[in-house]
Amino acid sequence: MGPIPAGFAADADGMLMIGGRRADALVAEAGDTPLFVYDLALVDAKIARFRAAFPSVHLHYAIKANSYAPLLEHVQKHVDGLDIASGGELGFALEAGADPSTISFAGPGKRDSDLEAAIAAGVTLNCESEGEAERAFTIGARIGRTPRLAVRVNPDFEIKGSGMRMGGGAKPFGVDAARVPALVRRIIAAGATWRGFHIFAGSQALDPAALIEAQRATVALAAQLSDQAGEAPPLVNLGGGFGIPYFNGEQSVDVEAVGEELERTLRNRPQALQKTEFAIELGRWLVGECGVYLTRIVDRKESHGKTFLVTDGGMQHQLAASGNFGQVVRRNYPVAIANRFGAAPEEDVTVVGCLCTPLDRLADDVAMPRAGPGDLVAVFLAGAYGLSASPQAFLAQQAAREIVVGAHAD
Amino acid sequence: MGPIPAGFAADADGMLMIGGRRADALVAEAGDTPLFVYDLALVDAKIARFRAAFPSVHLHYAIKANSYAPLLEHVQKHVDGLDIASGGELGFALEAGADPSTISFAGPGKRDSDLEAAIAAGVTLNCESEGEAERAFTIGARIGRTPRLAVRVNPDFEIKGSGMRMGGGAKPFGVDAARVPALVRRIIAAGATWRGFHIFAGSQALDPAALIEAQRATVALAAQLSDQAGEAPPLVNLGGGFGIPYFNGEQSVDVEAVGEELERTLRNRPQALQKTEFAIELGRWLVGECGVYLTRIVDRKESHGKTFLVTDGGMQHQLAASGNFGQVVRRNYPVAIANRFGAAPEEDVTVVGCLCTPLDRLADDVAMPRAGPGDLVAVFLAGAYGLSASPQAFLAQQAAREIVVGAHAD
Repeated sequence: MGPIPAGFAADADGMLMIGGRRADALVAEAGDTPLFVYDLALVDAKIARFRAAFPSVHLHYAIKANSYAPLLEHVQKHVDGLDIASGGELGFALEAGADPSTISFAGPGKRDSDLEAAIAAGVTLNCESEGEAERAFTIGARIGRTPRLAVRVNPDFEIKGSGMRMGGGAKPFGVDAARVPALVRRIIAAGATWRGFHIFAGSQALDPAALIEAQRATVALAAQLSDQAGEAPPLVNLGGGFGIPYFNGEQSVDVEAVGEELERTLRNRPQALQKTEFAIELGRWLVGECGVYLTRIVDRKESHGKTFLVTDGGMQHQLAASGNFGQVVRRNYPVAIANRFGAAPEEDVTVVGCLCTPLDRLADDVAMPRAGPGDLVAVFLAGAYGLSASPQAFLAQQAAREIVVGAHAD
Repeated sequence: MGPIPAGFAADADGMLMIGGRRADALVAEAGDTPLFVYDLALVDAKIARFRAAFPSVHLHYAIKANSYAPLLEHVQKHVDGLDIASGGELGFALEAGADPSTISFAGPGKRDSDLEAAIAAGVTLNCESEGEAERAFTIGARIGRTPRLAVRVNPDFEIKGSGMRMGGGAKPFGVDAARVPALVRRIIAAGATWRGFHIFAGSQALDPAALIEAQRATVALAAQLSDQAGEAPPLVNLGGGFGIPYFNGEQSVDVEAVGEELERTLRNRPQALQKTEFAIELGRWLVGECGVYLTRIVDRKESHGKTFLVTDGGMQHQLAASGNFGQVVRRNYPVAIANRFGAAPEEDVTVVGCLCTPLDRLADDVAMPRAGPGDLVAVFLAGAYGLSASPQAFLAQQAAREIVVGAHAD
């Protein structure tokens, strides 16, 4: 299975501590399992690490990773902008107290009602097509507001080795680079407020060299598009793509190395981009490692010589951990017995959820200390693309709860 | 892409009709897209077909396939029992008006609260382990009710070629066949009401020969377990496993052939099972083909020579159609332009949802009549494992609506 992220240890009883609190006490406070716990101190540490590595770059939070309100309220105070992907997320961002002028909205299927809400709120739209820009002009005119428009660019490159390709070749996202200069001129001619470029080439990349190369190419593409359009972009959103290690053998991103190279690239950037500001948009890297999913063992079973620990959670809350969220081959996320955290492994077990389907697996054939009914299983890396990215209503099981820890006075 | 199921045609305008209603009128009635429409007349036809093919066998509905209340209320009146998989589904079944004595509850992770609710309601528990049976005895004694218990058997065989293997080898479901006789004796000795066996060997099977072979093996296994336990089962739930064709080249199950063979097997069944009743538990086969997912095209885009139709729906409602629900290779469900239904294909397009992820695909490179913003896309086979099996909260997009058509006075 994958590596347990830093920041988690056991107390003297062997109980997993999250944000200085015992896992069992958190379950008692929340009222029941299954429970997602998010440690905001770990998010703060990530933000501080980013700030140190990228002093000239704005930090945006992609709220699709985790929009749980108490987490979002905390994070939005410490970043420079929020990236949203729907009208619903616009509502979350505004409720969390974000300044609309720092919010940008990407997404290939924005409805007219989404565009209107965003224009009315003064949020920047990352236009995904010429048609979307035209709709924004029409809606802006109708409601008497000037749309703030950036262009999402479909670059001709991707981040090599990224978990999810967002650029390179035919894509439903953004506008092919060759058509971007004409669209920029059209936006300016239509009287909209020109906000710049959004260039997102991939996600879940762990190799710093691949990130460095993609960021260099992104800055160069922004300069070229700026020259061709005859207008400099006020802001270039360089995308994100910083991954976290989920599986055995994976390593954390060396963000300091990435930052050093990007800072150098920006110091030496072309004349056309001298007044341009730059942002990096992160979701998974900021919040993925802060989350732990706690579920209780309901049954311990033997079948044909194999031991199964059956929990009260499962893929209805952890679709990605079950291996059903874009993975071709299922591999184990890091898991542990929370009330015997750090104890030596004693047996190989398979941890499953409570759903009546063989898809509902949390860990296959992992070495664990002995555990049975009543014990708590912790699934790590549950802070991003966890509950909101899972089929929560499936089989009408017990709803998951969420809680934040590690918050200090802001 | 896969075959569009029978029962759908266009009106004179080329508009898809569902249950005798125009697709656009249904969207207007429901208020918006995305919309799931379930045609109950198609479910009734399936039930009638089952009754004709299996005159001696009870029909159970596995509500995990679709528990939308108006559909469930209708179906429960026309079947002999409901199979549930959680305490939540128990609530749905009771609210739908089902007789508790005809409900059976399978699922490997039943919590004590689930067991208590089921025992209090008089529902049959399909015990998934010896430990679960012991918990049921304890809870029954505490609340002063006699538990109704069946044993879910993990058979040593599976349905060959089934989409999802539920038997054969080490499994978290049921009790290995070798340990079942001892558990039956324990249940009877403990004073619980003995209800029989639940033997589920696979799902989504299309080959009648494989289903026939699995049913023969299931009846033989039930007889053998009955002999070994020294007690005949009042009921044997033979499982289900009847699939529906999703993909190009797949064929509907010849249920008449399966029924003829099962009826012959039951006429010639061993003496031990003479008084035993038999049930088949179906979900997908009963309701899968009755559902159509309607979503509106928001944008039409070209990228590097490829045409994308971007809709206001997507994997947040159709995880399986997007290829992320246990599929190893993504293939296209049957789709159509609902307002040009039956029109000749004019171009190859890729239909995507509105989510900002390359996972959100509804149909790759399919030949369609020309369509653009405002047109309706229909995704067929949306009646089972659709909305409830999808990550509805993901990216906080527009919620899907549901509606039933084709209901007649019961």
